[in-house]
Amino acid sequence: MPNATWTITQTDFSPENHKAYEGLFTLGSGALHIRGALEEPIAAAPQNLHYWRLPGNVTSEVFREQRSKVGTFVPGVYGSHPLLNDELINLPNPLLIVPIVAGEQFDLDGSRTETHTRTLDLKTGLLTRTFTWRTKAGPDLRITHERFVSMARPRVLAQRCSIEVDAPTDLVLRTGIDATVTTNGFSHTQSVTASATCPHTSVDLQTDAGDRVRIDGRLVSPEATTTTSAPGMPEGGAWLATSVRLAASAPVVVERFVTIATSRDTRDRMGTDCNQAAEMGFDALLAESVEAWSARWSACDVRVEGDPHAQLALRTSLFHLFRAHPGEDDRVAIDAKGYAGEAYWGRFFWDTEMYLLPFYLYTEPARGKVLTDFRLRSLGGARRNAASLGLPGAKFAWESNPAGDECCPNWHYADHEIHISADVVFGIAHADAAHPGAGYLEGAAELVFDVARYWMARTATRSGDDHPSLLGVMGPDEYTPLEDNNAYTNALAAFALRTAAGLAERRGDARGERDAWRRTADTLPIPRRGALVLQSEGFDNLPAADFAARWTDRDRPFAGQVPQEYLYRTRCPKQADVLMLMWLFPRQFTLEEQRAAWDYYVPITTHDSSLSPAIHGLMACRLGLPDEAWRFWKQACDIDLRGGAAEGIHIAACAATWQMAILGFAGLELANNTETLTLTPRLPAGWSALEFPIVWRGSPLTIRVTRADVTITSRAETEIQTMIAGTPHTIAPGRPTTIALATGTSR
Amino acid sequence: MPNATWTITQTDFSPENHKAYEGLFTLGSGALHIRGALEEPIAAAPQNLHYWRLPGNVTSEVFREQRSKVGTFVPGVYGSHPLLNDELINLPNPLLIVPIVAGEQFDLDGSRTETHTRTLDLKTGLLTRTFTWRTKAGPDLRITHERFVSMARPRVLAQRCSIEVDAPTDLVLRTGIDATVTTNGFSHTQSVTASATCPHTSVDLQTDAGDRVRIDGRLVSPEATTTTSAPGMPEGGAWLATSVRLAASAPVVVERFVTIATSRDTRDRMGTDCNQAAEMGFDALLAESVEAWSARWSACDVRVEGDPHAQLALRTSLFHLFRAHPGEDDRVAIDAKGYAGEAYWGRFFWDTEMYLLPFYLYTEPARGKVLTDFRLRSLGGARRNAASLGLPGAKFAWESNPAGDECCPNWHYADHEIHISADVVFGIAHADAAHPGAGYLEGAAELVFDVARYWMARTATRSGDDHPSLLGVMGPDEYTPLEDNNAYTNALAAFALRTAAGLAERRGDARGERDAWRRTADTLPIPRRGALVLQSEGFDNLPAADFAARWTDRDRPFAGQVPQEYLYRTRCPKQADVLMLMWLFPRQFTLEEQRAAWDYYVPITTHDSSLSPAIHGLMACRLGLPDEAWRFWKQACDIDLRGGAAEGIHIAACAATWQMAILGFAGLELANNTETLTLTPRLPAGWSALEFPIVWRGSPLTIRVTRADVTITSRAETEIQTMIAGTPHTIAPGRPTTIALATGTSR
Repeated sequence: MPNATWTITQTDFSPENHKAYEGLFTLGSGALHIRGALEEPIAAAPQNLHYWRLPGNVTSEVFREQRSKVGTFVPGVYGSHPLLNDELINLPNPLLIVPIVAGEQFDLDGSRTETHTRTLDLKTGLLTRTFTWRTKAGPDLRITHERFVSMARPRVLAQRCSIEVDAPTDLVLRTGIDATVTTNGFSHTQSVTASATCPHTSVDLQTDAGDRVRIDGRLVSPEATTTTSAPGMPEGGAWLATSVRLAASAPVVVERFVTIATSRDTRDRMGTDCNQAAEMGFDALLAESVEAWSARWSACDVRVEGDPHAQLALRTSLFHLFRAHPGEDDRVAIDAKGYAGEAYWGRFFWDTEMYLLPFYLYTEPARGKVLTDFRLRSLGGARRNAASLGLPGAKFAWESNPAGDECCPNWHYADHEIHISADVVFGIAHADAAHPGAGYLEGAAELVFDVARYWMARTATRSGDDHPSLLGVMGPDEYTPLEDNNAYTNALAAFALRTAAGLAERRGDARGERDAWRRTADTLPIPRRGALVLQSEGFDNLPAADFAARWTDRDRPFAGQVPQEYLYRTRCPKQADVLMLMWLFPRQFTLEEQRAAWDYYVPITTHDSSLSPAIHGLMACRLGLPDEAWRFWKQACDIDLRGGAAEGIHIAACAATWQMAILGFAGLELANNTETLTLTPRLPAGWSALEFPIVWRGSPLTIRVTRADVTITSRAETEIQTMIAGTPHTIAPGRPTTIALATGTSR
Repeated sequence: MPNATWTITQTDFSPENHKAYEGLFTLGSGALHIRGALEEPIAAAPQNLHYWRLPGNVTSEVFREQRSKVGTFVPGVYGSHPLLNDELINLPNPLLIVPIVAGEQFDLDGSRTETHTRTLDLKTGLLTRTFTWRTKAGPDLRITHERFVSMARPRVLAQRCSIEVDAPTDLVLRTGIDATVTTNGFSHTQSVTASATCPHTSVDLQTDAGDRVRIDGRLVSPEATTTTSAPGMPEGGAWLATSVRLAASAPVVVERFVTIATSRDTRDRMGTDCNQAAEMGFDALLAESVEAWSARWSACDVRVEGDPHAQLALRTSLFHLFRAHPGEDDRVAIDAKGYAGEAYWGRFFWDTEMYLLPFYLYTEPARGKVLTDFRLRSLGGARRNAASLGLPGAKFAWESNPAGDECCPNWHYADHEIHISADVVFGIAHADAAHPGAGYLEGAAELVFDVARYWMARTATRSGDDHPSLLGVMGPDEYTPLEDNNAYTNALAAFALRTAAGLAERRGDARGERDAWRRTADTLPIPRRGALVLQSEGFDNLPAADFAARWTDRDRPFAGQVPQEYLYRTRCPKQADVLMLMWLFPRQFTLEEQRAAWDYYVPITTHDSSLSPAIHGLMACRLGLPDEAWRFWKQACDIDLRGGAAEGIHIAACAATWQMAILGFAGLELANNTETLTLTPRLPAGWSALEFPIVWRGSPLTIRVTRADVTITSRAETEIQTMIAGTPHTIAPGRPTTIALATGTSR
C-alpha cells in the first residue's frame, strides 16, 4: 500500500483523462523533462495534430484538441513557430517500448487490459505502471514499466520493463525513439538522422534555430532474447525489435537508458553517456537519483498533520517545483507550464517574480538567484523590446523567450500589459531584502536604471492634469484591456522608480535623473473612491457582468461562457488585481482599505486564472477570514491533481500553494516587509500542525506551527529576532525554541 | 496623341512601380476583374510568395512584399484562408502571351526593350501596350498587345497581339492559363484539371468552398502559324505553343478569347462561350463593349473645365466605379479594393453605405438598390454575428463576406467597431430619401428592427448614470480603441433606433418596443466640452501625439513611423470621426460647433486612411474654407493615379472624389437632409465649369455650374423645386434653365 501523502496513483484510464495524467506525471531533472505519456502509442489518440484557426472564427487562438501529447523538453532549446513566435521545442519521444504478441500490438485503449495502475512516487521521482494484458492469442501478460529521470545525472532517463506470462508465448518488443514529434502542429526539425545498431538507437537533429540535439538510447536485454535493428518504423525514428520466447516460470526484464545532449551543453557533452548509464544499471542509477531527491525534500518539504489531501497537494506542488527549476543554468527560467506541455510555448511570464521566486528565495536561495540572474542575462531583449516601441531603457517581455524578446503574438498583452517590467525589479528587490549583503540590487543596477528610464518615457501628463499617468495599460486583470492609471501598474512602476532612485543615491550617481524618478514615483496616482482603491480610473462605473444570467456553469471558467467582447466591457476581473497590489504592499494600505477592496472585488472576480485563488487565500488569512481562506485554499491547492494538467503543470499555482501554506496559514511575513522574522499563524481548522524549513536572511531554520505553539529550530550561527503572533522573541541557535501562542511565552 | 483627360499612359516601367500600375490598369465588367499584369512573367518579380508572419514580430498582419501580383477575380467566389478567414479567391491567370525568339523568352525586366508604353482608354476600357524588343539573336520585334473585358458580355476577355519584325526570324508564342495562382499565399484549389487541345485551352477547378470555376481560352492565329498543345508548362496550367516565321513585310496578329464560368452563374453557363466570342472577333466584341461603356459615361460623366488633371482623376474614379459594381447581382457588393487586388480579402466594409452608395443613388439608382439589397440578403450573417456575441437582433460584420458573416480576424475591429450596423440602416434610409416611394425602408423592416434590437442589448447604464451608454467601442478613428460613448457611434445608433421606431409607428406596430427604442435614442449622450463635440469621453484629456518629433516623413503615414502602442495612447485620429458625424448630420450641429470641431480635429488628424481627406474637403466646402477644400481635394482626388493602387483600387476614395466634386464644389445637398434640390456652388479657383448628370428623387437632370451661373436641364415630367445658392427657383422640364449666381435670377 503506497503512502497516500507521497504517491499519486491512477487506477482509471480513459482517453478523456489521459492527457491530464500525462502532464501530472511529468518527470524531470531541471535539464530534461518528459511528460507522462505511455510507453506505447494509443491509436485513437493520434499525435502531431495541426494547430489551426477555426474557419470563420474571429478569435486569435485555438487550443489543440488532442487526447494525448507526448512531451520531451530541454530548457533553452527553442524554435520559431510561424504563427506563435519562439517556442520551446517538443523533442523526439524516447520512451517507446511496445509489446507485440502474435501480431497484436498492445494498445491501452483497444486491447483487453486489467488492473492498469500508474503510480508516481513523489519522494523518489519513480513512475511505475503495472497491468495485465489479455492477448487475443490467449496468454495473459503481466507487464510492469518503471521510469525516472535522474536527479543526479540530469540528462539521463532510465526505464525498466518486466514481463511475466501465464503460458508460453512469443513476444516482440519494439523499442526506440520517435523523431516525428511536432510542437503545436509545427515541426522545428531542420534535418534529422536516425540510426539503430543493436543495442543502440540514436537520433541526431538540427533545429530550425540551429541547435543540435542528440538522443542516444541503449537497450539492455537478457541473453535469452534476440534483438535486431528495425530501421524506419515509423519513419523518422530509430527502432530495435527484441524477440523472446516467454515461459511461465521466467519473467523477462529489459532495461533502457536514454541520454539527451544538445549544443547548449557547456560541459563536455553531457557528463554521462548512455553506455556509462547502462553499465551502472537501473537500480544503481535509481539509488543515486533518490539520494539527490532526498536532499531537495529535506531542504523544502512542508509537513501538514491532520490533512492527508493537503499534504499530498503540497508535495505534488513541491515535486514539480524541484523538477522545473533549471539548476545552475541562468540562461533560462521556469516556463509557465513547468516544462510539462506545449501550452504557453515555453515562455517566461511575471509568474517568475510574483509566484515562483518567493518559494526558492526562502528554501534554496541559490536557485532564487538563478531566476533573477536570468532577467539580468536577458536585459538585451528587454532593451530591444523598448526600442521596438520607440522608447528608451528596458521593457521586459510579457511573454519572454530565453533572450528576453517579446514573443506574445497578441498586441494587447504584448504592448499594454507592461507591469511586468516593474515586477522584475520588485523580484530583484525582494531577493535583496531576503538575502541582504548578497548584492542582488547592486548587481542589477543597469537593469534597474534602464527599467526606470522606460517608465519615465512611458508616462504622460494629460491636458488639465498636474500629475503623470500611465494610459492604455492592462493590469493583472486581463479582462479589462487598456485601462488608464491601473492601480497595480502605477504602484509597481512607482516602486521600480523609487528602487532605482534609492540605488542611484547609494551609488552616489548624479541627482538629475534620480530626482525625476522619485518625483514621478510620488505623483503617479492610485485611483480611489473613498476608502475603495479602484482598479483603474472609472472602473467602478463599468456595468457589472451579469453572473446570474450568464455564468450558468460555475465549474467552468466564465470566459468560456460569454464572448470576449462581453468581458471587455463589463466589471468581472479575471484575477486578483487591486488585491494583488495590497498583498504585495501591506504597509501602503490601511486595513480598512484592504477590507473595502476585499468586499468590493471578491464578489465580481471570476478567478478564471489559476493565479487568482491563492492570492485571495493569502489576503483572507491577513484579513482574518478563515472560512474564505479555506475556500480559496481548496480552489488553489490541487489544480493539477484535479485534472488540470493536460497542457502542462500550473507551476506558478504550485508555488502559490506553498505561499498560501507558509505566508498564509503559518503567516510568515516576507522579508521586503520586515527585517524581523514575523509569524502570525492561522492554521486551518483541520490542520493540527504545519512544519517546514526556511532560510531567513541567510539563516536556515525549521518552523513547526501547531494550534498551541510555534517551535523554531535554528541552524544559524547567531541569535534571530522574531515576532510571533505579535510578540517579540529571540531564538538562539541549536536547540528548538517553543513559543506558546496563547501566552506568547517561550520555553 | 491620346486625350489627356480620357487616358492614363505609362511610359516608365520599373519593378518598383509595376505593382501600382497592375492595380490601376485593372479591367472589369462587374462580373469579372483582371489586374493589369503583363502578358508575360517577370522573372525577378515572382508570384505566389507566402503570407507569413515575421519572426519575433508581435503584430498580427504582414503585407506581402511582392513586386508583381496577377489578379483574376469573380465577385462571390470566396474561399477560406486558414489565417485570414474567408477571402475573395485569386483565380487562374488567363492572360499569358509569351514571345520567345531563339530560346530567349521576353522579360520586360531583363530583355532589351525600347519605347515601352501602356495606355488605358477610360472611355472604352481598352488597355494597349506597345514596345520594341531588341532580341539577343538580332532582330527587333515591335509588339502591340490590346485587351479588354467586355462590358456587354461580362465574362469575356479579349486579347490581340500584333508583332512586326525588321528582319526575318522564327518566333514562338506561348499562350495559356496559369492555374498555380495563390491568394495571400494560400491555394484555394481543391482539385484542378488543365487541358490544351489546339486551339483550345481550359482550366476546370473546384475551390475549397465547393465552387466550380471553368476558364476557357481560344486562340485565333493566322494560317501561316503552327499551333501545338504544350501541356505542363508551368505545371498546373494549360498551354499552346504557336510557331511562326516572321517576315519584315508581314506583321502577324493573333487573337485570344477567354471566358470564365462559375457554379454561381444563375443563367445558362455564362451567356457567351469562348467559341462565340472567337467567331465575333476582337473588333466586333470591342465595338459592342464600347457602346456599353458609352451608356455608363453618359449617365455619370462629370466634366471639369479648366483643370485637365482633376478631369482625369475624376474619370479614373468613375472608370473603376463603373467596373467594380456587380450589376444586378445582389449576392455581393463592392469590396474594399474594388476587385483589383488581394488586400482586405474581398470583404465589404462601411465603405458601402458611407462612400459608395451616394454615387450610385444619384447616378444609376438601380445600382444603388443592389448595394442595399446586398445587406438585406446577408441579414442571416448579421444575425449569426449578434448571436455569436450572445446578443439578440442583427450585428453587421465589420468585414463581411457575401453571407454577412464577420471575417475580421482582429478582435478589436470585429467585436468593437460596431457603428457599421447603424451605418447600414443609415444607407437604407438615405436610399429611401433619395428615391421616395421605392419602398426601401419598408422592404428592409426586418433588418431595421433587428439592428435596433442589437443596439438595445449592446447599450448599458453605468452605476451612477441616468442614461444608457455604448462602452468599449471603436469609432471611425481606428487609432483610439475601446472608447466610451464615441459621438459618431452614439449618434448613428440613435439614428438607427429612431428610424426603427418611426418605421414601426408607420406600420402600426405595438408601442412597447418602439417607445424603448426612441427613449434610448434620445438619451444616448454626445460628449461635449463647451462648443466642442468630443470624439468620446475623455478624448480631449489624452496627450497629443508628438507629430513634430515623431512624424518625420510627412509623405508617409504616421502609423508607419510610430508603433501601434503609441497611436493607441495618444490623440491622433486616423480619419474623420466627429467631422464625419457632422458631415452626415449637418442639422444636428450648429455652424459654431462644426467650426470648433474643425479647428480642434484638423491639426491632430493623420489622414492615414484614404477615407479621410475627401470628408475633410467636404466639410471645408461647407464651412467656406476654399483653400482647405482645395488642399484636401488634392490629397483625395488621385490616390490611385499617384501610385497607390498596388494592392488594389481605393474604390471608396473613388466615390469620395465624386462626392467632393458634386456635394462639395457643386454643393448638392443630400436628399436625406432636404426634399428640395439644393445647390450651393463653391467652384475651385481654377475650375471654369463643372457639369454632371444626376437623378434627383426620380428625376434625371443635367447640372452645369460655372463661376457665374447654374444651368439645369431637366428630363423630368414635372417641375422641380430648387434652392440655388440660397434662392428658390422652379425648374420646368425640357429646356435648360440658367440661374445667375450673383443675382439669383433665372433666364
